[in-house]
Amino acid sequence: MPEPAAGEVRVRIRAAALNRRDAFITRGLYPGIALPCTPGSDGCGEIDALGAGVVGLRCGEEVVLDPMLAWGPNRRIWAEGSGILGMPQPGTLAQFLCVPAENVYGKPAHLDFQHAAALPLAGLTAYRALITRARLQAGETVLIPGIGSGVQSCALLFAKAIGARAVVTSSSDEKLERARALGADVVVNYAADPQWFKTLKSVGPIDAAIDGSGGETLARILDIVRPGGRVAIYGGTSGDAKIRPFSIFWKQLDVLGSSMGSPEDFRDMLALVSEKRIEPIVGAVFRLHDIVAAVAQLESGANFGKVVVTVD
Amino acid sequence: MPEPAAGEVRVRIRAAALNRRDAFITRGLYPGIALPCTPGSDGCGEIDALGAGVVGLRCGEEVVLDPMLAWGPNRRIWAEGSGILGMPQPGTLAQFLCVPAENVYGKPAHLDFQHAAALPLAGLTAYRALITRARLQAGETVLIPGIGSGVQSCALLFAKAIGARAVVTSSSDEKLERARALGADVVVNYAADPQWFKTLKSVGPIDAAIDGSGGETLARILDIVRPGGRVAIYGGTSGDAKIRPFSIFWKQLDVLGSSMGSPEDFRDMLALVSEKRIEPIVGAVFRLHDIVAAVAQLESGANFGKVVVTVD
Repeated sequence: MPEPAAGEVRVRIRAAALNRRDAFITRGLYPGIALPCTPGSDGCGEIDALGAGVVGLRCGEEVVLDPMLAWGPNRRIWAEGSGILGMPQPGTLAQFLCVPAENVYGKPAHLDFQHAAALPLAGLTAYRALITRARLQAGETVLIPGIGSGVQSCALLFAKAIGARAVVTSSSDEKLERARALGADVVVNYAADPQWFKTLKSVGPIDAAIDGSGGETLARILDIVRPGGRVAIYGGTSGDAKIRPFSIFWKQLDVLGSSMGSPEDFRDMLALVSEKRIEPIVGAVFRLHDIVAAVAQLESGANFGKVVVTVD
Repeated sequence: MPEPAAGEVRVRIRAAALNRRDAFITRGLYPGIALPCTPGSDGCGEIDALGAGVVGLRCGEEVVLDPMLAWGPNRRIWAEGSGILGMPQPGTLAQFLCVPAENVYGKPAHLDFQHAAALPLAGLTAYRALITRARLQAGETVLIPGIGSGVQSCALLFAKAIGARAVVTSSSDEKLERARALGADVVVNYAADPQWFKTLKSVGPIDAAIDGSGGETLARILDIVRPGGRVAIYGGTSGDAKIRPFSIFWKQLDVLGSSMGSPEDFRDMLALVSEKRIEPIVGAVFRLHDIVAAVAQLESGANFGKVVVTVD
């Protein structure tokens, strides 16, 4: 049983969720791995004990955890020494976890633990990339390639919640159907349509895009987005991208890197979720002792939305 | 002798200057070439005749020409139908030229015609990329790779004029010496130092960079600039760039496309030049009937600053 240090709270975890980061760590593919560690960046539960000096929180309170540790005072960029919950610091795939009190936020009242656990890292990443960085506005059109991941499905929910038009792509008709049910305005199967980038150019001006894949997808996105448009990049799972500088300079694009988010991003994301009663997408639920199967499910890429892990 | 239409003025050109665009046009390497045409985007001279409806200008006034035609009302991005002086519209490599009255600005009083001709396109491009887009501030450090071109030498002058620190690179020690004399704080010969990108990482945080080359230079720049930094891209003469998305997203970079500039950019650039008595760099001077030699000089890449063409 961990004991909360001064300024920390202990949380009894009720549900956690997996991110690609966790899978990378289990495979030794993440920089700076320090063992032993408990992975897991997403979690929610009840406050179980308060460390010295913690005020404004009480035991039993239902909370979600901001997975970004020690972002610092600059909203534009994290401070040196910041980190992410779950390696090297102990993470959420546990029954009890001590975290800084500043990382604890009230759970949105309309969400149960499983849905609240699906929110933190994907929601923070999507919110900062799409709203803070790419400045998506009501009435604009956003391109969300590779719908189905936790971040991209949050991006779809947030885009629709603020009144934007969403164009999504996937190689799976099933995921596209699901996206349409969630409000996607245009869906394109890039596996079935080798000219998908031309198809996307025909749907009208794309004001912004959000990408976590890199590779050819990113290169195509830069060619597709309208002059003066914005492209937020929060990942590069497909690796390096061979890009044409011409698309960037001639169209005067803003290509905006984004990763995790500031405390203000997390707070604003929760406020949007509560105000619009947004339900994060839970793609699969496992119990903690089935964690190996849960990671395999994440890595299969088959699910739409988050892989959630319940903790007894 | 061209006649000014309503809203136009005729300018007697005293000096013009060359840009890579002109060389590309002579080689048939520019999109949408329409012949016959008179190239030339940079020019200055005296107002020679006023078209109907033109007020606030008088014949004999010494002017420089904004090479960006019909940018439109949105400072963020040019309007459909905008263009650049000199193909398909007649350009400045001529004795007389009619242009919209809105493209005519008073010549900075401290500059002669040759230096004023060196300013418009390179100055506009550098100003928008560095100041408007990359938001360079006094006290910051900017990386200017490939010093010697018209745009990069203007970027160096502007960076020093606003009180920034300038780090420049070149493959020529002679150009680096010249840059140092113009105020460059750190100079690196990338041909003599195969680890130039590591050297650059050791000079302290690079807040911003301005690049017109693309290719490997751009990829390296993205790795070098500090977290939260800005990279303005105004060209891609070295072609496609294979970039790591990680550098962009993890460091939350702003990668900002820029090309030409708005009327406000041109006005603000002239104001900075006048206020700080900036002298654009003239690398070589030719007479108009030696234009073929002038283009060859531009293409040699040997000169530091602009290739200027005087018009009798």
